[in-house]
Amino acid sequence: MLRPSETALRRALLRFARLCHERYLLVGMDGNLSVRLSDGLLLCTRAGCHKGLLEDEDLVVIDLDGRKLRGRGEPTSEMAMHLACYAARPDVEAVVHAHPPTCVAFTVAGVSLAQCVLPEVVLTIGSIPTLEYQRTGTHQLADLVGHAIRTHDAVMMDRHGAVCVGPNLLDAFCKLETMEHTAKILLAARQLGQVRELPVDEAEKLRAMGLARYGGPPVAGALPGHCQNCSGCGRPSAEGVAKSAGFSVARLTGRGA
Amino acid sequence: MLRPSETALRRALLRFARLCHERYLLVGMDGNLSVRLSDGLLLCTRAGCHKGLLEDEDLVVIDLDGRKLRGRGEPTSEMAMHLACYAARPDVEAVVHAHPPTCVAFTVAGVSLAQCVLPEVVLTIGSIPTLEYQRTGTHQLADLVGHAIRTHDAVMMDRHGAVCVGPNLLDAFCKLETMEHTAKILLAARQLGQVRELPVDEAEKLRAMGLARYGGPPVAGALPGHCQNCSGCGRPSAEGVAKSAGFSVARLTGRGA
Amino acid sequence: MLRPSETALRRALLRFARLCHERYLLVGMDGNLSVRLSDGLLLCTRAGCHKGLLEDEDLVVIDLDGRKLRGRGEPTSEMAMHLACYAARPDVEAVVHAHPPTCVAFTVAGVSLAQCVLPEVVLTIGSIPTLEYQRTGTHQLADLVGHAIRTHDAVMMDRHGAVCVGPNLLDAFCKLETMEHTAKILLAARQLGQVRELPVDEAEKLRAMGLARYGGPPVAGALPGHCQNCSGCGRPSAEGVAKSAGFSVARLTGRGA
Amino acid sequence: MLRPSETALRRALLRFARLCHERYLLVGMDGNLSVRLSDGLLLCTRAGCHKGLLEDEDLVVIDLDGRKLRGRGEPTSEMAMHLACYAARPDVEAVVHAHPPTCVAFTVAGVSLAQCVLPEVVLTIGSIPTLEYQRTGTHQLADLVGHAIRTHDAVMMDRHGAVCVGPNLLDAFCKLETMEHTAKILLAARQLGQVRELPVDEAEKLRAMGLARYGGPPVAGALPGHCQNCSGCGRPSAEGVAKSAGFSVARLTGRGA
Repeated sequence: MLRPSETALRRALLRFARLCHERYLLVGMDGNLSVRLSDGLLLCTRAGCHKGLLEDEDLVVIDLDGRKLRGRGEPTSEMAMHLACYAARPDVEAVVHAHPPTCVAFTVAGVSLAQCVLPEVVLTIGSIPTLEYQRTGTHQLADLVGHAIRTHDAVMMDRHGAVCVGPNLLDAFCKLETMEHTAKILLAARQLGQVRELPVDEAEKLRAMGLARYGGPPVAGALPGHCQNCSGCGRPSAEGVAKSAGFSVARLTGRGA
Repeated sequence: MLRPSETALRRALLRFARLCHERYLLVGMDGNLSVRLSDGLLLCTRAGCHKGLLEDEDLVVIDLDGRKLRGRGEPTSEMAMHLACYAARPDVEAVVHAHPPTCVAFTVAGVSLAQCVLPEVVLTIGSIPTLEYQRTGTHQLADLVGHAIRTHDAVMMDRHGAVCVGPNLLDAFCKLETMEHTAKILLAARQLGQVRELPVDEAEKLRAMGLARYGGPPVAGALPGHCQNCSGCGRPSAEGVAKSAGFSVARLTGRGA
Repeated sequence: MLRPSETALRRALLRFARLCHERYLLVGMDGNLSVRLSDGLLLCTRAGCHKGLLEDEDLVVIDLDGRKLRGRGEPTSEMAMHLACYAARPDVEAVVHAHPPTCVAFTVAGVSLAQCVLPEVVLTIGSIPTLEYQRTGTHQLADLVGHAIRTHDAVMMDRHGAVCVGPNLLDAFCKLETMEHTAKILLAARQLGQVRELPVDEAEKLRAMGLARYGGPPVAGALPGHCQNCSGCGRPSAEGVAKSAGFSVARLTGRGA
Repeated sequence: MLRPSETALRRALLRFARLCHERYLLVGMDGNLSVRLSDGLLLCTRAGCHKGLLEDEDLVVIDLDGRKLRGRGEPTSEMAMHLACYAARPDVEAVVHAHPPTCVAFTVAGVSLAQCVLPEVVLTIGSIPTLEYQRTGTHQLADLVGHAIRTHDAVMMDRHGAVCVGPNLLDAFCKLETMEHTAKILLAARQLGQVRELPVDEAEKLRAMGLARYGGPPVAGALPGHCQNCSGCGRPSAEGVAKSAGFSVARLTGRGA
């Protein structure tokens, strides 16, 4: 595959990191972004830098085992989550991890973000599972994220934040923006009295349309409430995938899902 | 009618698309904008572009049947809604479709945005109906929007977003901004305990003043609760208009209206 | 008194108008700003311009009777409120009218913003009365605002917006920002369970300190609940002032105060 | 210790002051920032300037007794809080005081921000005590802040605002951003139904990790609910520290803590 030049990718990574901060999708030293430079190398943000004030010198080049090859400073311990995503999905070219506040609030309250309410979210993302709490920087967390990314392009980690993947940084960033926009809408709708979910058959039709039109994980996760093969997409259910990988569905979907 | 040059319209379209993103009226690849170049041609955003990062090369020129004449990329399937607006109203020069989050939350909760509470909204927009759910990109949705635009300058589509029209992009954008500003005020007022509506006669007087001062649809829609001829503006009621067009009022106003 | 040059005032007016929009204190064509050029002339925004996109050509020069002397376009009918403020208070050099959304929500819900909760608000603004509903652009509304400004630097108009005055545009803008910041805090505190008001004697001491340190209306309005002479500032109460001017206190404070 | 040049520190102070305003962490003339120039001198914002419009000429140089040595205008009476922080902690190089609205709302409602909910907050800040109300600019307030800063890097003052300290302006600003981001998450989670706290042993392990990795106060304050020696960090509890300094824990933690 033909990738943009390193110069173009460095510029894009700075742009989306700063946008993450500008749009309150992270604060302080939170979050990290990465993008494939070649099949064996990644460009990523270093540990301990402010994403809103990010400069080119804050980027480092690492290999797929997390070893730094170029740049000042060190990759963060959270890079393990990124590596797990790239290992799980050869089609993933970019990973964005941030702390979208309303999405995080849903996990803190134990309320699922996996409902099908807004058609464009079902079309472009599908359902968003919440992974059970694991301490940041651990291999347990990286494993859990890597596993969930096999069937989803966007996941929430309980009381921590989001991981979004895509064929480029723009696509992964759009999923992150959409998650938080959606969470704000769901919160306001609850404050107004109720959240009317989409009928199941409409959600399934939309998801099938979305996978055909916009692509998605090679093995797309089922919509919530569809632990059997999803009639909309004709692909194995999340439960099937999880079992074959030795994970329990409870672990994959977490208490909030 | 004398229109601004294509160069000026391209610049304006970029400006308002970016403002839509900057002000959280849409995220990701959401939304689309269009403006008349001549009586037979439209300038519009292409499918699959980020409105906050929009560049001149993301604009395409189409005719009133939706065929692309110039530009890279393709018009979106949502252009059908725009075409329906231009067909319904020769006075409409610009259409803005976005996903204002608090407005969308009202539709998700099934709560109407058609109340008369803030005088400046009654003056400049009138009441805002909510159209029943239709799948995005369908002719059913385009028909419903085109019909509602005959009597309103701003409508909500259930669990989807807003369509605003006007004599130029600035005017359509202002209506969009005002809708979301108003929805935020109504949500906060509900959280504070109550929404005090304007007395019916004051709302009617304001709407008549607004139509005289700022213009509006040639056949202005009635204020909510006024299915008879509206004494303020002396024009046919929404019910009358809908019936003569073969639509039921229930369909026009939707469950949220 | 020595005023900045017209060039400097034009630049300042553009800056604060754009800031009003940038910070969501108004949207669309809402709001208007003015500043004294000389004892007989005012610089103000014209009718029907977007404050976030304001340009120098959107400013007009009027006299204290509201007649336009220079500039394109017309002054808005809301300029009557500004004229009433300048007539009531020779010390007022600038007037800002905007639609801060959380403040407006308080008036829509009929909840007072006149509570003493945050010390810096008591120090710099005192209490904020809410004026009863009057149709925009009427002399009744202008009279009500002009009267209230005799004893307050910042007032809310029911279901409409704020009027803030000061010795310069920066000062009036700061009061507007502070009102909305405070309203957001009060709303969130209510959502968290309660709003703990300051003890009355502490509020009175703070207000006296603030009037001495930061100035304020020549006849400062009493704090809420203090319809007798305010022991903190030793000045006539709002009731006394209102009576001597032929207004009822109910009218001055409105249903929300 | 080697500090950046005065020129670099002036530029940094302007940057973070403007960011405080841009991100709604203060409005109007609120807040103040300072940074050590040398062991005996501080650079700080003058009284009565708007942080969003701050210019180099708004900065003054003072000594550790608060006497102005250079610059136009005067230091604010709130500089006493800054001086108390520098006196209490030789390791503190920068102090940021602002009015983050959601954090202030927690104090107005009397709800603690000292809960352990989000791992990254426990890692980087620990728990955030709320100090009892004291009038702004008093020595009582400065003493209370200076005392609390001995064991915490970030504190809330009841119905007033935050004080954050750190080894540089960026670090102190990040703590401020993180506090407000966290308060927004906690508020939204409460609105969604509940705030699930971290298990006590996990919070203690995270805090110990954070102190080792990111540093913190030389005598770190205990996590809430740990008035005995904290098993996670093996340091004296807040109660112990407070008693040895002649303060009551009630005074230190305030009614909101």
